[in-house]
Amino acid sequence: MEKVYVNAGDGYDVLIGPGLLAEAGNRVREALGIGGVPENGGTGVKLALFTDTTVGPLYGEAVEKSLKEAGFTVVRYEYPAGEKSKNIETVAHFVEFLAESGMTRKDAVVVLGGGVAGDMGGFAAATFMRGIKFIQIPTSLLAAVDSSVGGKTGVDIPAGKNLMGAFWQPSLVLCDTDVFGSLTEDLLLDGFAEVIKTAAICDSGFFERLEAAAGSGGGPGVLRSILREHAADIVRDCVRIKGHVVENDEREGGLRRILNFGHTMAHAIEKDADYGLSHGKAVAIGMLMVTGASEKRGLSPAGTLDRLTRLISGLGYATSWDAPLETLCEIARSDKKSRGSHIGIVVLEEIGKAAVTDVKTSELADFYRI
Amino acid sequence: MEKVYVNAGDGYDVLIGPGLLAEAGNRVREALGIGGVPENGGTGVKLALFTDTTVGPLYGEAVEKSLKEAGFTVVRYEYPAGEKSKNIETVAHFVEFLAESGMTRKDAVVVLGGGVAGDMGGFAAATFMRGIKFIQIPTSLLAAVDSSVGGKTGVDIPAGKNLMGAFWQPSLVLCDTDVFGSLTEDLLLDGFAEVIKTAAICDSGFFERLEAAAGSGGGPGVLRSILREHAADIVRDCVRIKGHVVENDEREGGLRRILNFGHTMAHAIEKDADYGLSHGKAVAIGMLMVTGASEKRGLSPAGTLDRLTRLISGLGYATSWDAPLETLCEIARSDKKSRGSHIGIVVLEEIGKAAVTDVKTSELADFYRI
Repeated sequence: MEKVYVNAGDGYDVLIGPGLLAEAGNRVREALGIGGVPENGGTGVKLALFTDTTVGPLYGEAVEKSLKEAGFTVVRYEYPAGEKSKNIETVAHFVEFLAESGMTRKDAVVVLGGGVAGDMGGFAAATFMRGIKFIQIPTSLLAAVDSSVGGKTGVDIPAGKNLMGAFWQPSLVLCDTDVFGSLTEDLLLDGFAEVIKTAAICDSGFFERLEAAAGSGGGPGVLRSILREHAADIVRDCVRIKGHVVENDEREGGLRRILNFGHTMAHAIEKDADYGLSHGKAVAIGMLMVTGASEKRGLSPAGTLDRLTRLISGLGYATSWDAPLETLCEIARSDKKSRGSHIGIVVLEEIGKAAVTDVKTSELADFYRI
Repeated sequence: MEKVYVNAGDGYDVLIGPGLLAEAGNRVREALGIGGVPENGGTGVKLALFTDTTVGPLYGEAVEKSLKEAGFTVVRYEYPAGEKSKNIETVAHFVEFLAESGMTRKDAVVVLGGGVAGDMGGFAAATFMRGIKFIQIPTSLLAAVDSSVGGKTGVDIPAGKNLMGAFWQPSLVLCDTDVFGSLTEDLLLDGFAEVIKTAAICDSGFFERLEAAAGSGGGPGVLRSILREHAADIVRDCVRIKGHVVENDEREGGLRRILNFGHTMAHAIEKDADYGLSHGKAVAIGMLMVTGASEKRGLSPAGTLDRLTRLISGLGYATSWDAPLETLCEIARSDKKSRGSHIGIVVLEEIGKAAVTDVKTSELADFYRI
């Protein structure tokens, strides 16, 4: 088992390895600072298991069993799976459920699911009685490497994604690598783009290990076999790097911006696709677009785009998006987060090192044109 | 003008005195760290004025004018006045309005109104883009002395009051004492109970000054004349004391519990009255009930109830509530915040000094019976 300590909020461990779902009970006890199982078996602490209608039937029973055996009272809440549920109504209903279940500030939320579940369950924990503890059990690769670290919680509102939320750190993240086996190729691609991004912006050695693992590529199947062999190492490296970035910039002042590598165009592509393309697949294309531009402008050394393209296309990602650059830049400019005269664009100074360069909003298309 | 610095969150000033509404613009500039008015007059910062349909027409124009003259762009949002608006839908609509108005993390919310406005506007500021700054301009006595310090924000949910929210500190509180002149006697009574409470639990000198100001009482009118003469001093003392308590216990671990003096029975009375009695009036009765009990049990010195009763009844408050003690205790026991085997009851060790005593939930009525 791998273990990464993240020094954000009160500080917490991310545990990574096979078979962790079945150990949830004891791990949560430790994280909440509850000693050995008392004689009568009860901890006096209630846990609300927050999951969706897809993940709940798959893993809910196993997690619930483990939590109960460790002496917790468990109540379960399932919401309809899918991005459409990611709104304030779902969170408010869950908060109501917490109150109706008699939860108090000494109790906790356990989130079992992907990024959407983590964002909403975490936001509910952040706001119920103005904040109770929560534990995250990510069940997608994206949630494991990305949304489980950073403390970002929240929901979409009609005006845009993730515009309502809170920074709220978990007390424990339990990442059972066995669950990746049940993910579709699409979901694996969705998550792995964040792995590539993390290596590209922060760790050239990690990037080289990914290149070695990917070998000469081979399309569908190669990603699954990489994860079968290296899942725990890969997630650990990602969490370690992201944890380091977040520790130094918990509330998004500066350093954390480099995590947006590839994201300006990715968000535009996702919108242009009406969210028919996954975030990760869009990020893969976005990283190539910005690196093509930065290399042409001498901001990235020659050959950077080449290495990035080889890894990305070798793993089965599309490498371009069929829309005029002007259209994408127009969408990016209209992004509510990008208002102002300049947009900070993340570029690779080299593989493993990122920097932010300010581009005039009006010259965005010129910057990206290659 | 009085000024109290509260060392919670990033730290902020509470300014208290007459005529502050008209100075809002420059005060907000200072609080947000914006220098002298630039040549073109614009600060580049947008402020969203959050108020209700009662307060907006009274003071909205004056505040907006001052903010605009100081170089801010101002957008205004009014929600229907009243406790019924205090729900997550109102906050979500306002957050949507913030996004649609093109607000970003560098912009801020200005809350103009009573406790309900402060709770909701603060919660919106805490959650829009995971947190932007906010300024509070309380327009009721209760909001000035109580809800403007402490960082408690939130909304009611069907299961109970204030069960969804966040701790979020303002960047500035502007308390214009002129606004008290337009408050009804009922609203003054509602707020002044918190003044008495604050003095009773923390500051015997302050309590004596209140006794002196109240003189021999005289019912309706006396409160108004006290405030005409001493409003700024009274609010300053309350804010200073509450600020001190909050600084030492920002997230409600211990010390802050003493602020609940009188509140266990007050909440029960409010519920029994179906919220037809104001919070402050209920707190006045609650303080007398618990002090009657604590004095009988030797937890408070003889004569404490007497002094408290003289001040409270002299100002025109009712001193008892016509419901069986068992009924009130039953309601208190069913309070979702009170679940567990014990309830912490705040008692006066003497005037100016409070302590928490744990009472078995099952023996609550025995404790209060006098």
